[in-house]
Amino acid sequence: MQRYFVQKDSINYLNNTAYIIGDDVHHIKVVMRMNVGNKVYLCDNEKTFIAEISSIEEHLVTFNLVEEVLDNPELDIEVTIAHGLVSREKKEETIQKITQLGAVGYIPVLMKNSVVKIVKEKEQKQTERLQKIAKEASEQSHRIKELVVNNPITFKELLKLTSLYDACLFASTVEEKDSNNFKKIIRRKDIKKILVLVGPEAGIDKSEIEMLNNWIPISLGPRILRTEVAPLYILSAISYEKELGD
Amino acid sequence: MQRYFVQKDSINYLNNTAYIIGDDVHHIKVVMRMNVGNKVYLCDNEKTFIAEISSIEEHLVTFNLVEEVLDNPELDIEVTIAHGLVSREKKEETIQKITQLGAVGYIPVLMKNSVVKIVKEKEQKQTERLQKIAKEASEQSHRIKELVVNNPITFKELLKLTSLYDACLFASTVEEKDSNNFKKIIRRKDIKKILVLVGPEAGIDKSEIEMLNNWIPISLGPRILRTEVAPLYILSAISYEKELGD
Repeated sequence: MQRYFVQKDSINYLNNTAYIIGDDVHHIKVVMRMNVGNKVYLCDNEKTFIAEISSIEEHLVTFNLVEEVLDNPELDIEVTIAHGLVSREKKEETIQKITQLGAVGYIPVLMKNSVVKIVKEKEQKQTERLQKIAKEASEQSHRIKELVVNNPITFKELLKLTSLYDACLFASTVEEKDSNNFKKIIRRKDIKKILVLVGPEAGIDKSEIEMLNNWIPISLGPRILRTEVAPLYILSAISYEKELGD
Repeated sequence: MQRYFVQKDSINYLNNTAYIIGDDVHHIKVVMRMNVGNKVYLCDNEKTFIAEISSIEEHLVTFNLVEEVLDNPELDIEVTIAHGLVSREKKEETIQKITQLGAVGYIPVLMKNSVVKIVKEKEQKQTERLQKIAKEASEQSHRIKELVVNNPITFKELLKLTSLYDACLFASTVEEKDSNNFKKIIRRKDIKKILVLVGPEAGIDKSEIEMLNNWIPISLGPRILRTEVAPLYILSAISYEKELGD
């Protein structure tokens, strides 16, 4: 059954109705060729409902909510990936995959070794495009929460965000004695919201590592992972640790 | 320092010399513009050496071995991914990434839900191309072993391979009671060689699942993962379990 993300104010929880406007109307009518009576999943980033189409207008589809779906496919730790600015293709691919793997946020970061630069005029449009990819991937992987794509920020701006998270980590070739940092952090029950920084292709610069004082270096194993693979490792490992039975 | 894979018979362990022929000669001479005296890593799929170029001929480069590198970046469990036949692009991407993550083998499998078909005449050439991608990825991620790409086989042929492995698993939406299968298997110290089957885009067909009697279903978490992401989850989780400190 098809899934659509809607804003909270598009659902009336009292009389169990909802509506969709915008691009998804086209998707329902033209791509899926749905009719009154067809059912879909509607997610408001917190809850999921089975909803039946009650009317299809030119720019509006209305629904009656049938029942709430109680399965929760969200990781019980909120993971935001801060990613050294990479090419558009790599950003798209990373967002697509980390959404499937349960991340809640993606922040592109302009770093010393980023080959790509921020183009102010194109920034907003690119973020909107990336958000659309995140929305579609969230729907396809049956997420309740839609991954949020941020506008690119500078490395110095990233450092100001640390207080928003229970822990801030960065992917690193850490020393032997620190190779257990990752497991230690994600096994802590009090940590519910983390930010993980992955450098661009050429890695995090030495001068930047010096500024990551309160950040925790984590190892991702003995092989060299590319910048688009490291975020997938991080999220897969967290799911394995938290979501699979012992 | 650049890495090259060589056949075992290209290294003389008694007098500490080695040679390279084939495409890598071009890479050393033209792409890297190396000269006599420059050093590289040579890997023979078991050991890695630092080697110094002793001569550069038209189709041959010779080396003196300087020392053996004792770091071992290989997973201590050999993982082969059997992958429902997918498009060439997805195969390439998957091979690229599972090589970084430590897999030793990749077997494309013609399954009921595979949209792509095997084209006998193109098969050998495609496998050679994929092997080249695996070789480059193995070098870039500092592997000692080169991932081996197999020619495509049928699902029935796959079933005949099970005796080669200590355990055969398949990615599945398993029941709650089996959700700990994955951890149980990879924590067993006696299991050193596993085969993991991931279905094509539309998944493993019901009729095929029925034939996987001795195979162990494993869960990869509550979200729907695409066929190109599931193998990355599997290998990341194994590295997390086996290679990161507790």
